[in-house]
Formats: sequence, C-alpha cells, structure tokens
Amino acid sequence: MILTVTPNTALDLTYRVRSLRPHTSHRVSEVVERPGGKGVNVARVLAALGHPVTVTGFAGGRTGRAIQERLTAVPGVVDALVPCAGASRRTVAVVDGTTGDTTQLNEPGPVVSPAEWSAFQEAYEGLLGSASAVALCGSLPPGVPVGAYAGLVRSARAAGVPVLLDTAGEPLRRGVAARPDIVKPNAEELAELTGSHEPLRATQDARRRGARAVVASLGAQGLLAVTPEGRWRAAPPARVHGNPTGAGDSAVAGLLSGLVENLPWPDRLARAAALSAATVRAPAAGEFDFVAYEELRPRITVTAEATAA
Amino acid sequence: MILTVTPNTALDLTYRVRSLRPHTSHRVSEVVERPGGKGVNVARVLAALGHPVTVTGFAGGRTGRAIQERLTAVPGVVDALVPCAGASRRTVAVVDGTTGDTTQLNEPGPVVSPAEWSAFQEAYEGLLGSASAVALCGSLPPGVPVGAYAGLVRSARAAGVPVLLDTAGEPLRRGVAARPDIVKPNAEELAELTGSHEPLRATQDARRRGARAVVASLGAQGLLAVTPEGRWRAAPPARVHGNPTGAGDSAVAGLLSGLVENLPWPDRLARAAALSAATVRAPAAGEFDFVAYEELRPRITVTAEATAA
Repeated sequence: MILTVTPNTALDLTYRVRSLRPHTSHRVSEVVERPGGKGVNVARVLAALGHPVTVTGFAGGRTGRAIQERLTAVPGVVDALVPCAGASRRTVAVVDGTTGDTTQLNEPGPVVSPAEWSAFQEAYEGLLGSASAVALCGSLPPGVPVGAYAGLVRSARAAGVPVLLDTAGEPLRRGVAARPDIVKPNAEELAELTGSHEPLRATQDARRRGARAVVASLGAQGLLAVTPEGRWRAAPPARVHGNPTGAGDSAVAGLLSGLVENLPWPDRLARAAALSAATVRAPAAGEFDFVAYEELRPRITVTAEATAA
Repeated sequence: MILTVTPNTALDLTYRVRSLRPHTSHRVSEVVERPGGKGVNVARVLAALGHPVTVTGFAGGRTGRAIQERLTAVPGVVDALVPCAGASRRTVAVVDGTTGDTTQLNEPGPVVSPAEWSAFQEAYEGLLGSASAVALCGSLPPGVPVGAYAGLVRSARAAGVPVLLDTAGEPLRRGVAARPDIVKPNAEELAELTGSHEPLRATQDARRRGARAVVASLGAQGLLAVTPEGRWRAAPPARVHGNPTGAGDSAVAGLLSGLVENLPWPDRLARAAALSAATVRAPAAGEFDFVAYEELRPRITVTAEATAA
C-alpha cells in the first residue's frame, strides 16, 4: 500500500453564498462536508486510481470522528489515524455564487502533546513496514516540533521506503535537508525556500538543498521537474479553467502512483499534470473528473528543459 | 420554569482572523464554540438572572450532540431538545481583528419531517404544563410549516401560559395574528411586518395585528413598547459601543423575567434595556456583562410616549 501522512487532518466545509460581503450576514444555501487535509486528498485520488492507500496523522474530538467516519466510507482507503485529545480542525471554503471565487478560513488544529507525537511516530514506523511509498503532506498542528517532517523522512529512508514531502516554510526547509526522494513545492513555497522567483533556478536550488527530485507545481504553467534522470516541464495544451483547490494534491498522487509503478519520469509527470488539470476542471472543489483526466492525459506535453544558466 | 423554544438551534462558532479579505486564505487564530440560536441565548441570560429555564426545539446529528453537551454545562438550564434525523446547523461569525467587524455565515439547518414536527408539538404541550412563560424564538428550519409559531402561540394561550414571539417574516406575520402576549421585533422586522419605517406608528400597527404588547428593539434608540397599560421608550443615557450580537435576545430575557416576576411595564423595560446594553458592551459576542448590567440598570430612562397621529 501507499501511505499518506496528514498530521493536521481537517473536516473541510464548503459553504455556498449568493455573494460574500464582509461585515454583513449571509444565508448559506448549500453545505458540503468532506474529510480533508492534503494527505487525505492525495489518498482519495490514489484510491480512485486503484492504489490501496492507508491514511495516518491525527484525529481528535467530535470533528476527528466525523473525519474518520467519512474517510472509511471511501473505497480503497484504510484509516490508520492516531487519536489525540484535542479536536481536529475544520476548514471553511466560502464560495461566492456570483463570482465563483473562494474565501478560505482555516482553523489552527489541535495542540498535540509530546506523548501523542511519540505515539504517532511509533504507529508511523509500524506502517512503513508494509508501505511501497509514503507522502508527508501539509501543515503541522500546534505542538508538533518544526523538525517533525525531517525525522519522518529519515525514518522512511532507513526503512527503504521512497518518500515525498509536500509542505511549506520551516518544516519544508528542514525536511528537504533530510534528503527526501521528491519534494513538490508550489511557486510560493519554492520562492520562500530558495529566495528566487525564477522557477528553474529555484527548482535546481531546492534540489541542491537535499531533495533527490524536485517537482514544482506552477499553476497554469504546469509542472517543472528537476530529477537525477533529467529536467522536464509538463503542461496541458491550453489553460484549464476552474477551481485550483486540491490540484497540487492530485499532482502528488500522480507522482506517487507513477513511482510505485516504476513509470519513467516523463510519464509520471504527464499523469500528475493531467490529474492536476482534471482537478481544476472538476465541478466540486478538490475532486477530480476521471473523464477529464482520460481526455487530458494524452494531450499533456512533456518537454525537456535546459539547465538554468 | 420559563420555557424557551428554538426550532433551529445552532452551534455558534466565532473565528478571529487578522483581517478578512474576500477571495484569499485566512489562518483562524482563535475558535470559540457555544450553543446558540435565539432561544438558547435567551435561556442563558434567564439562568444568569436566577430563573430556572428549560430549552426545547430540535437537535440532530453530531452538531446537535455538541449543542446539547454544551447546553447542559450551563447551570440552571434544562435540556429538553427533541431529536431530529438531520444535523443541526452551525453558524460562523468571522471577527476581523483589525476593524472588529463581524461577517456572519448561517447554515440553513436540518430538514424537519412532518413526524418530527408532530413529536415536537407533543413534547412542547407537555412542557407547557410546568411553564410560567414561554418564548418562541428565531428562524424555522426547513420543513417546519410557516404557520408553526401561530400554532405554538395558540397552544400556549390554551394552556394559560403567557407567550412571547421573536421571529421575522411570514412566521412573524402569522404568529402575531394568533394573539401572542408580547412580540419583540427589531426595526427591520417591524418595517417588514407593517410596511412603515416610522417606529411608533409601526409598533402600534403591529399591536393592531393581534399582539397584546409590542416591544420594538431599535438598536441605539433603545426599546419602544406599546402595551395595554401604556406606551414607553427605554434607553441608556448614552450610546453604548460594542457588538450588538445577542442584544435582542437579552432584551427578551429581561421582558420574560419581568413578566413572571409581575414587574410593572416600566421596570420590565428598564431591565430589558439594561441587559441589552450590557450585552453590547460585553467583550464576548452574545454574552452579557453582569457588572455592566448592574451599573446600567439604574441609568436607563423610561419615558411615556404619546400616541402617534
């Protein structure tokens, strides 16, 4: 199985309102609830691709139970979330029915105690034993040490399990130094890590910091990969319109599934870019449209990139 | 005991953000959860005033259980909420930490079936037997007939229990016609009911529609009451600054407690106006500041009003 780690799982609420106007009162016309957090989104896409997947991280309180209840309803997904005393967070995405724009409100998440973090590490090391690959995804809840992902990367490497890291800020900086197989920053995370806004230069710099491969997700510009086997850019033939929520998580699922299937890098990237575009195009935020995926997959162009000067 | 009815109970979430900017992502720095819905707020104030109070209405799903858990933690409040299959709603108040302004998002609430509505009516009629007064508060969840409050007013009158109605729109229009003892519209609800934006004229008109007494809450202008015993205006000496959330619910608690204590109308109004102002002044939205109440109570001026031309 593929293991995805989401330390800060969430119950994602989507609220549709007629038009969001600050400092007024709104009647929510439609409420959608689904289990979330980046690793949970990755797991859902992996399961849809036919890969058995196990989800770990923390779940606590009433919201944690709601996340677990909904997670176990997804075929192909095994719930291995570790309990914590604090309540798991909610996120609220307010969709403006007039403009289609989304305003996001993210609760911080439960405070995780040192004992809970130790219990998680033990569970994680146990799960690595049967994992073909692992993805470490998203923000860390309060209380989890900032070097947490670096430790989880080292455990995976010690267990011989390929590891992908998708996070931001200091946890990314420290995690990269622990030499993960793949990191997948977006443009903003990459610029924050390297100080450079020039994507190819920044991607190469991120790789020099310790990652074996770096795949940067650059929104409408597609994916830019710098790997030991070469450098490529993968993008759909034309700009895809829709909601980018979850597009990066779908790209992670494409990269991981391609890794465990031993696909060549260009094929992994084409799959990741197609899943990402199919997620942007899906009617519901964070879902991906399988028909759109199959239609987009052969139309992704993967081109070799020269080294930055 | 005093009975408060909240057909559409809520779990009220307050989110503090640095600054609300539509179409961007926000980190919520503080989350406060409390049981809500107008009748629940009224009950909390009545309990703080030392009146035993029973809360009924609907509670369903995980959110309903969260509401009940928090409600039973309030001393003096008895939970008599009736179960429903749908999940109770959440409301989210987003407080902008820079301006202090609040943006409100209200979920619609559970769909109540005809069988659930019948079960509620039966429970309500049983509770009336030991009630000294009843308050019918807030919006109706989907599925509850628009004439629901009119029926509940008639049942209370048949049982000889004084009944106060605090709602809006068509449920208010029909409820008033069933001759409740008191209605407490705000300026907007009053204008919608009567078509008049002139408060005294509109208040008198609302009374002619069937209410024995009408107490209009006019924000900074205080309360305007038209009763069989006379007409009064009750207001604090100066404008009170703060958050008006829950001020109307505190006024209802003042009116009801004054009614069961057989206070003369001017004393009821002074108490209601002071509770209302003390709620505006409280640091937490919807709470009331008891010290502020005691300080404001003797400073409320109650003046007799002449009849509108």
